[in-house]
Amino acid sequence: MAKTGIRAVEFIGDSLVYLDQTRLPLIEEYVKTDSYEVIAGAIERLEIRGAPAIGVAAAYALALSLKGKTQNPRETFEAARKRLASTRPTAVNLFWALNEISETFELNFGRSDLYTCLINKAGEIHQEDVEKCEAIARNGLEIFKPHSVVLTHCNAGALATGGSGTALNVIKAGFEHGLVDFVYSDETRPLFQGSRLTAFELKKYNVPFAMNTDSTAAFLMQQKKIDLVVTGADRIALNGDTANKIGTYNLAVLCAYHNIPFYIAAPETTVDRSCPEGGAIKIELRGKDELTCFKDVRITSDEYEAYCPAFDVTPSSLISGIITDKKLYKPPYNF
Amino acid sequence: MAKTGIRAVEFIGDSLVYLDQTRLPLIEEYVKTDSYEVIAGAIERLEIRGAPAIGVAAAYALALSLKGKTQNPRETFEAARKRLASTRPTAVNLFWALNEISETFELNFGRSDLYTCLINKAGEIHQEDVEKCEAIARNGLEIFKPHSVVLTHCNAGALATGGSGTALNVIKAGFEHGLVDFVYSDETRPLFQGSRLTAFELKKYNVPFAMNTDSTAAFLMQQKKIDLVVTGADRIALNGDTANKIGTYNLAVLCAYHNIPFYIAAPETTVDRSCPEGGAIKIELRGKDELTCFKDVRITSDEYEAYCPAFDVTPSSLISGIITDKKLYKPPYNF
Repeated sequence: MAKTGIRAVEFIGDSLVYLDQTRLPLIEEYVKTDSYEVIAGAIERLEIRGAPAIGVAAAYALALSLKGKTQNPRETFEAARKRLASTRPTAVNLFWALNEISETFELNFGRSDLYTCLINKAGEIHQEDVEKCEAIARNGLEIFKPHSVVLTHCNAGALATGGSGTALNVIKAGFEHGLVDFVYSDETRPLFQGSRLTAFELKKYNVPFAMNTDSTAAFLMQQKKIDLVVTGADRIALNGDTANKIGTYNLAVLCAYHNIPFYIAAPETTVDRSCPEGGAIKIELRGKDELTCFKDVRITSDEYEAYCPAFDVTPSSLISGIITDKKLYKPPYNF
Repeated sequence: MAKTGIRAVEFIGDSLVYLDQTRLPLIEEYVKTDSYEVIAGAIERLEIRGAPAIGVAAAYALALSLKGKTQNPRETFEAARKRLASTRPTAVNLFWALNEISETFELNFGRSDLYTCLINKAGEIHQEDVEKCEAIARNGLEIFKPHSVVLTHCNAGALATGGSGTALNVIKAGFEHGLVDFVYSDETRPLFQGSRLTAFELKKYNVPFAMNTDSTAAFLMQQKKIDLVVTGADRIALNGDTANKIGTYNLAVLCAYHNIPFYIAAPETTVDRSCPEGGAIKIELRGKDELTCFKDVRITSDEYEAYCPAFDVTPSSLISGIITDKKLYKPPYNF
C-alpha cells in the first residue's frame, strides 16, 4: 500500500494483516486476523499504533465484526464499536473512523451485503489515508531549506498510518528532494517508538540518522545542530493546540527558546471539530510498568509510584506551522 | 558514614567496600576490594558513580595501589594514577582527589609508612565529603517555601557521594523540615539513575515521590505541578556554567520558560578553578549500547547510530542559585 514497502496494516483475503510494532525492529512479524477483538487488543497493546493507523485498523475491525454474522447484526456491531472505542482515549482518528463505519452501517442496515458495504468503506478510509500521506509530504516540502538537519519525536511514519506516514513522510520527502541531510530521532520514552520504529524506517529509507535520548534534544539545539523539528499529532484543537506523544511539548518549548521552527504534520481528520482548545483534550494515563520494566526485565521496583501520561498538549503559540493534506497552515490557526 | 544508612563507599579493614549501583534497586550488593584496578573498573562501569563518590573511591584506590608494595612505589603509584584518571573525563572531583593523594605521596615519599599516610589522606577526603554534604543541606534549606514540590534529575544523593548527598540531601533536609511535600524524579535516561537510585533513596527516607520520564518534566511544569528544580553538578566553571547529567540543561531551559527556580547543589570542590566558562568543559561521549540495550535485553538494532553525551552544560544565566558547602551563591557567579 505504502510505496516504501513498510505497511502498518493491509486488508488481504478478508482479513487484516498488521505488523506487530512491539517487536520491531528486531522481529518483523505480521499478524493475520479477522477478529475485531484481536485487533482491539493489538491497538491497546500498541502492536498497532499511531493515530491514523489506529483509525484504519479500527475501521476494518468494526467492519469485520459482521463477517459471517447474519443474526442480530446491530447488537454485534454495537458491542464491537464499544470495544474498539475503549482502546485508546486520545487519538481522534479512532472515533472519526468508527463514526464513518457506523454511518455506513445505518445507511445500509438490512441489506444482505451489509458486511461488504462496511469493508468497502474501511477500504475507502484506508485509501484516503494513503493519499493524505502523499499530500502531507508534498505540502510539507516548503519547510526545508537545503542541508536541513531535522529532529523528530516518536514515530509518525508509515508505521503510524495506513500510508507512508505524516511527519516522517515529510522528512523522507525532504531527504528525497535533497533538502534534508540528517535526522535525529528522539528515542521516545517510555516505549522507544523513536529508537525502534522511526530508526527502523529511516534505515529502510537510507536516510542518515542518529538516535538520542529525549533529554539530549536540548543539548543538540544548544550546539546549533538542529535546524527544525517536525512531529505528528494525535489530536488538534480548533485553535491549533496539539496533543501528541509525551515530550512533544518539551520540544516545542526548547524550539521557542532556541529560535528553531517547530512543525506538526497530520491529516485534517486529526482536527477535533468538537474541541475548541487544548485544555479540553483528555490525556491518557498509562500504567507505571512502562517505566518500571522493559519487556520482561525489571528496570526498577514496582513499589515505586510513577506518573505516566501518554501525551501532552502543545499550545498553538509554539507551533510554527501545521502541515495537513490540505495545506501548510501558519498561525494564527482557526480550523 | 552517612546518617541515612545508605553508603556508596566505606573503608573497612584495609579494603574499600562499595555498593554496586548498577544492580540497584533490585539487588543491594556490596563489593569488598583492595585492588585499584577493580575500583577503576567499577568507576568505568558506573558501579560507583556521582562526582563526589568517584573522588572518594579514587582517593582510596590510589592509596590502595601501594598496599603491601615496597618495590618501585613510584612506578606502581604512577601507573595507578594514570589508570584511575582514565576512567571518567568529566567529573572534576576525580582529578582533584587524585591530585590530593599525589601531593601526599610526594610529601611522604621514602617514608616506611607511606601507604598509611595515603590511606589517612583518603580518609580525610572522605570525612570532608561527609561534612560537606551536611553543610550543603543546611545551606540549601532557604530555597524552599512550605509545601514545595521539587523535581530532580539523575541521582545526587548519598549514593553519589561519600556522605549523605548534595542535591538530594538538600531535598531530604527540606522534607525533614516540613518544607517539601512531594518529589518528582526524572527517570534519567539512559542509565535510569533517577528511577533506580533516587527512587531507592527517596523510598528509604519515606519521602512521597513519583518517577516520570525525562520528557514529562515539561508537562508537569505546564500543569504548575513543580515549584522548583534542584540537581547536582559534575563540574562548575568559574562563571557558574555547570556540567551535569545529560538532560539538566533541558530542565534549566524549561524552568526559564515556566518561570520556575532552578538550583544546583555541589561541594566547592566541583568548581574547576582552571575552567573560566562552560565551553571549556570536555563532555564525555558514551557508547551507543546505553541506548540500544537494557541489561542483556536489546531495545533496538545495534546497526543504528546514536549520539550519547553523558553530560550537558547549563549556562549560569539559567541557574537561580548554586548551593555549596560554603554558602548559597546567587548570580552573577564569580568563583
